Amino acid sequence: MVIGGDAAGMSAASQARRRRAELEIIAFERSGWASYSACGEPYYVAGYVDPLERLIARTPERFADMNIDLRVRHQVEEIDLANRAVEIRDLLGERTFKVGFDQLLIATGATAVRPDITGITLDGVHELRTLDDAAALRAIADRGSGSAVVVGGGYIGLEVAEAFAVQGWTVTVVTSGESVLERTLDADLGATVVAGMEDRNIRVITGERVRCINGADNVESVGCEGETIEADVVILGMGSRPEVELAEAAGIPLGQTGAIAVDDHQRTSIEGVWSAGDCAEAMHRVTGSPANFHLGTVANKTGRVAGINIGGGDVRFPGVLGTAITKVCEVEVAMTGLRESAAVGLVSGDAEGTTTAGYWPGAAPIRIRATAERGSGRLMGAQIVGGPGSAKRIDVFATALWSGMTASDLAWADLAYAPPFSGVWDLIHIAARRAADAAAR
Amino acid sequence: MVIGGDAAGMSAASQARRRRAELEIIAFERSGWASYSACGEPYYVAGYVDPLERLIARTPERFADMNIDLRVRHQVEEIDLANRAVEIRDLLGERTFKVGFDQLLIATGATAVRPDITGITLDGVHELRTLDDAAALRAIADRGSGSAVVVGGGYIGLEVAEAFAVQGWTVTVVTSGESVLERTLDADLGATVVAGMEDRNIRVITGERVRCINGADNVESVGCEGETIEADVVILGMGSRPEVELAEAAGIPLGQTGAIAVDDHQRTSIEGVWSAGDCAEAMHRVTGSPANFHLGTVANKTGRVAGINIGGGDVRFPGVLGTAITKVCEVEVAMTGLRESAAVGLVSGDAEGTTTAGYWPGAAPIRIRATAERGSGRLMGAQIVGGPGSAKRIDVFATALWSGMTASDLAWADLAYAPPFSGVWDLIHIAARRAADAAAR
Repeated sequence: MVIGGDAAGMSAASQARRRRAELEIIAFERSGWASYSACGEPYYVAGYVDPLERLIARTPERFADMNIDLRVRHQVEEIDLANRAVEIRDLLGERTFKVGFDQLLIATGATAVRPDITGITLDGVHELRTLDDAAALRAIADRGSGSAVVVGGGYIGLEVAEAFAVQGWTVTVVTSGESVLERTLDADLGATVVAGMEDRNIRVITGERVRCINGADNVESVGCEGETIEADVVILGMGSRPEVELAEAAGIPLGQTGAIAVDDHQRTSIEGVWSAGDCAEAMHRVTGSPANFHLGTVANKTGRVAGINIGGGDVRFPGVLGTAITKVCEVEVAMTGLRESAAVGLVSGDAEGTTTAGYWPGAAPIRIRATAERGSGRLMGAQIVGGPGSAKRIDVFATALWSGMTASDLAWADLAYAPPFSGVWDLIHIAARRAADAAAR
Repeated sequence: MVIGGDAAGMSAASQARRRRAELEIIAFERSGWASYSACGEPYYVAGYVDPLERLIARTPERFADMNIDLRVRHQVEEIDLANRAVEIRDLLGERTFKVGFDQLLIATGATAVRPDITGITLDGVHELRTLDDAAALRAIADRGSGSAVVVGGGYIGLEVAEAFAVQGWTVTVVTSGESVLERTLDADLGATVVAGMEDRNIRVITGERVRCINGADNVESVGCEGETIEADVVILGMGSRPEVELAEAAGIPLGQTGAIAVDDHQRTSIEGVWSAGDCAEAMHRVTGSPANFHLGTVANKTGRVAGINIGGGDVRFPGVLGTAITKVCEVEVAMTGLRESAAVGLVSGDAEGTTTAGYWPGAAPIRIRATAERGSGRLMGAQIVGGPGSAKRIDVFATALWSGMTASDLAWADLAYAPPFSGVWDLIHIAARRAADAAAR
């Protein structure tokens, strides 16, 4: 039995099916959709992608063909470990029933952080997690004008800000942070993202706290400490937290991050109960400690691991680095591993230049910051901001972190060069060399 | 003393100067230019880059400011090891003189392979290595029409083919190979490059040998086995060989590749004589044997190593993978390490898809082939062909090879995902996983 029909849950179901044809597999999903690209939703709201169904990786019919019994609009209400069963509410039929399990995978994902302020339940206050959310926001955005306020400066918030701007709206982003994406990006690099948004007439207010949302039925304005901003729609972009209520209520242990504790096979400490995706912890390969990232990559990988193991295989999830990437307006941004501020004894090296040879037409600006451990010189993380062709370079750092390379190792690596792609020394080399030098001082 | 004023020689001179302010540094360069981007020349011929001087990294004046005595149009005629001196011809003054040295760096580079056929010395037969070559070819290309024949299917040949096509010429590429870039790319992947060239009306004739070049003074046609092709200009694109005549005549030992043998500090076996760049061997990190690649990256790195060591430092050149990349018309192509055909016991895994999420507007096709060692699963190499955003992904493989990762390690690496940049499983993951599976069979 799988609770949660998105990336982790359905990856697991598919892998388990592949390995054990005789297994009875049932999956319950609260929303009306399963196996979709949540990461693609802002682009649907923007109108870059159409129709909504393009974001669906596998339809319920396709799962039926695989002999996987996927039930959408079914909400699990309780996990009853003593009786090895779950209680489910059929949201359309409005009935409740119990189904037993031998093996249970909890893939309940994450849920948007909702600030405890007045007006948060007004009509017109939205989050963007499910395809239902995306459909609702697209319908609003398609009006083609109005005032949208994004509360928070996380990935999804910024992507939705762009989406509404593209659709003709007046958009304001309000964040209490020093800059946007502050949980993963240094503020001086975040400033490049802000500048890119301002170039597209998106107003970004940093260091400002939202006090209340005002309106009669529908939202009318957002009250901040410094000012009140007109709003026809409010989008929550304050990040997400693991959805662990069901697991917690059942007594399945959580870890120090607040997500469900699992071993490297995705097993919880309860026999026959597994967890994967946003709701589960994963080992951070740089810190060696449990972490909890809400990323499609991790959900797919941990779901795959859980499914293989439930299907009788034996595969270990090798951990995460928190590698993330996005594109906000014309600015690409990516990061992996740790920042200097994450721990004592870390140092950084910066490189700034162009994505191609300087003389190549269309050379775009790029900044790379590599972070290393003082003394050992071990590479610990990296951040990149820049124009087209910048951000996917983060994968080089991710690969270097994955294998435990030092900054000095990477500074000499035989990376590819031709004028349309980089300088003869890639800026990766230069940032790595400077980080190595800083680590040696 | 430095012989050869391009990437390796001038990198070395600069590094040595940084470390030892009192060092007397003199560099002799045969052409009229030093420290330029040879890799950018085809783009100058195409008119993408203008003027020619944009390809110059550092001018002779800048070197003079660094107290480096750079003499262009000076050809070294002999290295006299017994007297620790070289004999130089001043090509403008037409005088010959001798200069002594304490430390000598041979950075003579490489020279175009010239087939031994009649007509090879006719006017209108060009190679593209120096800026002088680039200036000559650009002057011809600027005529805006005519027939250009490229003999050979190497990198530079294909880039020049594109340049002449862009400039309005009728272009034919003739290669005896099964496909283009055959020394580094599998023929079925080369076919994608050929298709991209044909889309731009460049004719590519494979498996055809050039017998002769015909003409009175200027070239008029190229005689192949199967046909005769009209030609107003012929460009040699058969690759290059290390320019080692001076070293060989002086008794400086060459290695098994025919290039100058050096240790990991860029020392030849003669005390106080160093070599770097295209004319020198470099250790291949995958094979563990000496190799000889003619790449700007290797020239810059080995020049840097030589210069640091000549300047009193102690740095080891960690080797090469042969990572290379280019863009031919709209097709990006890159490779690193070994191909399956390079050794026994190698297997490959292919992945084919799009550079972004499939639903992202502008998703471009991409094919990745990862090669691993049977049994151990150690990653041995990779090749990539595809549309915009494809080829720089090779750096992930290069980094993985650099640190000795297995294909299976890479198949789980925490690479970045967002819809504008890849699928949730990057095709790198899929190719690596398939190579790992093949290696385990």
